[in-house]
Amino acid sequence: MISIETLTALKDAVGAKGWSDDPHELAPHTCDWRGRWQGETPLLLKPATTEEAAACVRICAREGIAITPQGGNTGLVGGSIPRGEVLISLSRMKQVREIDTANDAITVEAGCILESIQNEAEKVDRLFPLSLGSQGSATIGGLISTNAGGVHVLRYGMMRDLVLGIEAILPDGRIWNGLRGLRKDNSGYDLKQVFIGAEGTLGLVTAATLKLFPKPAETSVAFAGIPSPAAAVDLLGLAKSASGGTLSALEIIPRNALDLVLQHIPDTRDPLDQTHPWYALLEIGAARVGEGRAAMEDALSSGFEAGLVTDAVIAESESQAHALWQLREPIAEAEKAHGKAAKHDVSIPVSKIAAFIVEATAASERLVEGANVIAFGHVGDGNVHFNVASQEAGAGDAFLERCQPATEAIYDLVQKYGGSIAAEHGVGTLKSDDLAERRPLEVELMRSIKSALDPKGIMNPRVLIPVAR
Amino acid sequence: MISIETLTALKDAVGAKGWSDDPHELAPHTCDWRGRWQGETPLLLKPATTEEAAACVRICAREGIAITPQGGNTGLVGGSIPRGEVLISLSRMKQVREIDTANDAITVEAGCILESIQNEAEKVDRLFPLSLGSQGSATIGGLISTNAGGVHVLRYGMMRDLVLGIEAILPDGRIWNGLRGLRKDNSGYDLKQVFIGAEGTLGLVTAATLKLFPKPAETSVAFAGIPSPAAAVDLLGLAKSASGGTLSALEIIPRNALDLVLQHIPDTRDPLDQTHPWYALLEIGAARVGEGRAAMEDALSSGFEAGLVTDAVIAESESQAHALWQLREPIAEAEKAHGKAAKHDVSIPVSKIAAFIVEATAASERLVEGANVIAFGHVGDGNVHFNVASQEAGAGDAFLERCQPATEAIYDLVQKYGGSIAAEHGVGTLKSDDLAERRPLEVELMRSIKSALDPKGIMNPRVLIPVAR
Repeated sequence: MISIETLTALKDAVGAKGWSDDPHELAPHTCDWRGRWQGETPLLLKPATTEEAAACVRICAREGIAITPQGGNTGLVGGSIPRGEVLISLSRMKQVREIDTANDAITVEAGCILESIQNEAEKVDRLFPLSLGSQGSATIGGLISTNAGGVHVLRYGMMRDLVLGIEAILPDGRIWNGLRGLRKDNSGYDLKQVFIGAEGTLGLVTAATLKLFPKPAETSVAFAGIPSPAAAVDLLGLAKSASGGTLSALEIIPRNALDLVLQHIPDTRDPLDQTHPWYALLEIGAARVGEGRAAMEDALSSGFEAGLVTDAVIAESESQAHALWQLREPIAEAEKAHGKAAKHDVSIPVSKIAAFIVEATAASERLVEGANVIAFGHVGDGNVHFNVASQEAGAGDAFLERCQPATEAIYDLVQKYGGSIAAEHGVGTLKSDDLAERRPLEVELMRSIKSALDPKGIMNPRVLIPVAR
Repeated sequence: MISIETLTALKDAVGAKGWSDDPHELAPHTCDWRGRWQGETPLLLKPATTEEAAACVRICAREGIAITPQGGNTGLVGGSIPRGEVLISLSRMKQVREIDTANDAITVEAGCILESIQNEAEKVDRLFPLSLGSQGSATIGGLISTNAGGVHVLRYGMMRDLVLGIEAILPDGRIWNGLRGLRKDNSGYDLKQVFIGAEGTLGLVTAATLKLFPKPAETSVAFAGIPSPAAAVDLLGLAKSASGGTLSALEIIPRNALDLVLQHIPDTRDPLDQTHPWYALLEIGAARVGEGRAAMEDALSSGFEAGLVTDAVIAESESQAHALWQLREPIAEAEKAHGKAAKHDVSIPVSKIAAFIVEATAASERLVEGANVIAFGHVGDGNVHFNVASQEAGAGDAFLERCQPATEAIYDLVQKYGGSIAAEHGVGTLKSDDLAERRPLEVELMRSIKSALDPKGIMNPRVLIPVAR
């Protein structure tokens, strides 16, 4: 319980516009968008500045009050749902503090929405390459704290790779200004790396300096029918070699996922005449017009010759490119329309991904009667969204329950192949026990670092590192 | 003092071939190659396996004996010179454990020499892009522990960006196997990031899984006369935009550095007819033959039009490309032949680099009589090697002494422009006091992490984090 004095001090620290305890305003902040977790909070704090945020953390630190930081609340693992903690949202901190085109860098506050940063970059003829489904509501602070991935990791890396510097509130309320626009800085431990992907357990990221890139002059997108996931891996090799560092995506889509998209998503159509068991979506961004298309044709024709590609189309316009991406991006939405599914966001070395998909599919079909495995995603990064859906529409929680043995089998296969059970969606509260079980030494090291930086354990407790038993 | 029993236990742990206390064998390990530091050690340990290395660390941890890890001993900041600590060299751990071409990854032991890894990659038609002057002797373990940079950072990043996973001995002697070949792994804190660049203060990196890349089909190298550092920064923008992500280097060279190279390095000649105050060396690596040359021509002709380039040559062959690089790479060697110089490895946001060079040059000339400032390096990464040499040949320690006020002024300007006093060479013992003075909060956080992971403080004490006073 928080005392009235402390609640008053917190409210005073942010002013009248900076807090709420109105159940209607709190409601969307205390559950996740998929409706999987329902939490609670005594107080939502919305500081407008770094100093206000620091004042809040200082009070909480002094009183030993736990804090849950929340960005756009688009997470999938329960990492931003409070369970009685004070909730801090930086949604009012939306300033673009600096754009430095000569340094290809932009400094923004944590509450900025990803899409708005993409647009700011566009205005100065640059690209901010992070791109993912929730970009209309995900915030920079949350994207950094979860080390977000998305569809362009193959070329530009994860959020971690796009951050030059951060500003953060430490768990004792002090402000660390690490907002440097440097490409090289070997001044001891790279502290920002510790905060990136820490899911809010080490402090509150309030601002960041991010990398910008030249905009590709030409983007070539292709959609290819392929015989198998193994063919996708071999095609990846050909496409990387044909395009140098400019292959920005290679996504894999099984026919059953395409069927769901065609059925549930308006204005979609299969661009190929025949059906194929699997598809690959490729994107190449070139600095000079013509080179992207040429590289794509090279990759696909080598693929045809090697029997890796059975049919393919290359987009002739931006709208065609968009239409091809519309066969990939709404897969999660189409799945949701079909019914509930047990979802697994896993990564595997690229060389093992085909074997993993075959074995995990067989195990899931053996363990879950009526299972319809939908395995799709970022094969270029070794990241598969391996979902066990039901053959029948309208599956609910009872079906999810039946999938539990499949989840264990899938995670065992991930471990066998040296993979990760948390590829891009993070750990949160959903996978913290699994992680502790499967990587005990690493969780012990994380716990040491957490204790060193947050000795009172007030920053997002329960998340990532299970409470010691 | 280490007891005889402990020395015996350490020797037993590695066997007869695994240790030495012969002064002749120790000599090259107890001083740096520039002859700046002279240290000492009671025992050099050369474990042949991870298990042997772990046994050594376990014994040292039990007895509270400090350890200095040493790679190829090519460092410039005193980080690998023992001052009475037991010295551990992994030079016998040279296995290539796995090459996984489909995953574009190679797993190697810490004692492997960089050049041998470049060659292993070449054998499977891949590129390992890290490239620097000491690549014939620098080891993978040292390169990871110092987060090495070099000439291809612009395109491929620092060593940190090239590491997928590591194996390390923790300060208590346990082995952490984090050798994963994953592009995505959001399983909590990215622990490898803490060890990379930690200069051996958190543990002993014994092996790593590294990224491989497609080999460019064509590499275009150009050497351009330019009017100023500001022109180099603008030319960088043009070259990035003309080449997309394929610009792999943009180095800046002042005329006085070129003069030293032409004077001291055999078989070098100025490829341009006129002299120019500054030069830029550009390299573009393209996936398809012709595209690199075309991008280079675009960049240079835009540069001519904008008055940024006054003359330029593009290499017509590999040997010409090599000859152009020979005007850049041996600058340090040519400087050494001329005399001693006060060297500063600093980074600055790219947009501020020209102003920094102008002001730091003026300050150095004002503070050091007879100073000849030589500022060169990786302008594309905002990294300048800012060296204060003497106009007269044969300068010695007395000249270095006179440069001390210039060093302070240079570091103040670095701080003013939001830069780093340790860009790629690291901190070691040379800059640890300066770092603690200029970034006290960060050093405090580093100290917390160090205490959490190495509570007995046995791993490379004194380095990076000054001993608490």
